[in-house]
Amino acid sequence: MYLCGIMEKFDVHILGCGSALPTTRHSSSSQVVNLRDKLYMIDCGEGTQLQFRKAKLKFSRLNHIFISHLHGDHCFGLLGLISTLNLLGRTAELHIYSPKGLEELLKPMLSFFCRQITFEVCFHEFDTKKADVIYEDRSLVVSSIPLKHRMPCCGFLFAEKQLPNHIKRDMVDFYKVPVFELNRIKNGADYITPEGETIPNSILTTPSESPRKYAYCSDTIYHPVIVEQVKGVDLLFHESTFLTGEIGRAKETFHSTAAQAAHIARMAEVKRLLIGHFSARYEDDSLFYDEAAAIFPDTILAKEMLCIPV
Amino acid sequence: MYLCGIMEKFDVHILGCGSALPTTRHSSSSQVVNLRDKLYMIDCGEGTQLQFRKAKLKFSRLNHIFISHLHGDHCFGLLGLISTLNLLGRTAELHIYSPKGLEELLKPMLSFFCRQITFEVCFHEFDTKKADVIYEDRSLVVSSIPLKHRMPCCGFLFAEKQLPNHIKRDMVDFYKVPVFELNRIKNGADYITPEGETIPNSILTTPSESPRKYAYCSDTIYHPVIVEQVKGVDLLFHESTFLTGEIGRAKETFHSTAAQAAHIARMAEVKRLLIGHFSARYEDDSLFYDEAAAIFPDTILAKEMLCIPV
Repeated sequence: MYLCGIMEKFDVHILGCGSALPTTRHSSSSQVVNLRDKLYMIDCGEGTQLQFRKAKLKFSRLNHIFISHLHGDHCFGLLGLISTLNLLGRTAELHIYSPKGLEELLKPMLSFFCRQITFEVCFHEFDTKKADVIYEDRSLVVSSIPLKHRMPCCGFLFAEKQLPNHIKRDMVDFYKVPVFELNRIKNGADYITPEGETIPNSILTTPSESPRKYAYCSDTIYHPVIVEQVKGVDLLFHESTFLTGEIGRAKETFHSTAAQAAHIARMAEVKRLLIGHFSARYEDDSLFYDEAAAIFPDTILAKEMLCIPV
Repeated sequence: MYLCGIMEKFDVHILGCGSALPTTRHSSSSQVVNLRDKLYMIDCGEGTQLQFRKAKLKFSRLNHIFISHLHGDHCFGLLGLISTLNLLGRTAELHIYSPKGLEELLKPMLSFFCRQITFEVCFHEFDTKKADVIYEDRSLVVSSIPLKHRMPCCGFLFAEKQLPNHIKRDMVDFYKVPVFELNRIKNGADYITPEGETIPNSILTTPSESPRKYAYCSDTIYHPVIVEQVKGVDLLFHESTFLTGEIGRAKETFHSTAAQAAHIARMAEVKRLLIGHFSARYEDDSLFYDEAAAIFPDTILAKEMLCIPV
């Protein structure tokens, strides 16, 4: 029962925020979204299983993995992760959402390396050309965000569903509302007393918090088309592989600069911007922050083991 | 020129000494043998490329990788490592020695993930049923050591070749030996003076150090057949997945206990024993040391980033 206004957990864990070349400073791409203790992984570069352990997350809570695109630094950790889940005796299905091609690549490896696998790995392909709902459950909708990279690639929009209203305990007691009416009332119904009097819902409840949204956009060239889809999100992760000094290289490799990430955040009027996917050529991450924050002040620098409430 | 008795570099770097389940304490299996600044990798579990960087080793010095067997914790790092070498613009061939099957598994992944590869990956299969020379160069011979595991598996014997004798500078000066004679003399020839006098080699040189040997034996059940092949080596790495308390589990999974590793070392009269491949179930590695050292005192406990001169 939602009797008070405590926000449900909705966190983003950064497991890796480096780019193609993993270094001792940054691991390959991977994040975990924790929504009410269900874990959703986004990308799974080499070493992700270890970062997952370091973040003290639980394998048993992880059932869905979203892969943005089939570059090694975003998916080389899948084999090791699946092997480990198998060794741990997992039985629950594991669902992997990705652009076309992953299943064909992984299946022969899984058949060889996880011969006696104890659970099913279910591959789901999404079309990278259109924004689409690719996953939905009771509390969450995940949509793809078509990006522009050297190969088919999508970001992901994690949109919490509207929560039921909060019951005002004192009003419910005052009108002697029976328990079996509570669910209807939480979902917006008025209450009719045994005497036939209508008690409007607004007297019995307070509205729940607005549903929160997290958008993950990596890897992509500067691509303002996405602004519409990420409009007003609570937290936007946007890749920031380069600084403006390397804008030519950014274009050439279909990546973005910190300034470009900030421009997207500003145009989309997001609440906060999180930047990562830093190129190994830069030793000092604060340069990314400085460049982005000059354009969009509410910028956060990704860092391994950082946990950000959405 | 070998004018003095300085030992040439022959080190073993431990990059990972965990077993199937990588943990925050131990990485997956990988070691690097550094013989005179040429690097030879043994096994390549997930995350090896990062451990390699942490150990401050140079990718450009690595041309040969030896894979003991095709379990994921011994080879899942190959793809990421090869991708990184490709991104770094490597041009030199990379040679990978393994039991049959690796090329077939990796080739489709390499074709997809390293499309424009700048160097050649050369796969070499060895027969895991017999001890055989699988690699040889000017200063080193690597032989396979057939082990007994759940799948075809070999260890590796790294045997340094005999070094040339050391020239005694004062004697060479005394007899006015011309420079062009030095190589022959280092390799054992006597010197004939212009007057026809024979100066015996033993007057002109001191013998070089005995060639050193490093044996890597992982993964294997207790298998005394290997004793003959690793007899008297300077350093023996022997897997020690379990403690004696789990000897049943060791047998069942074709692994060894610390005590069994020590018995092999004692029977083979090796100089020092290095143990690793520790199961994730044990929190305190010193228990492995205690168990092995009680039987074979010159035991070293493997640990990530440890560098052991052979």
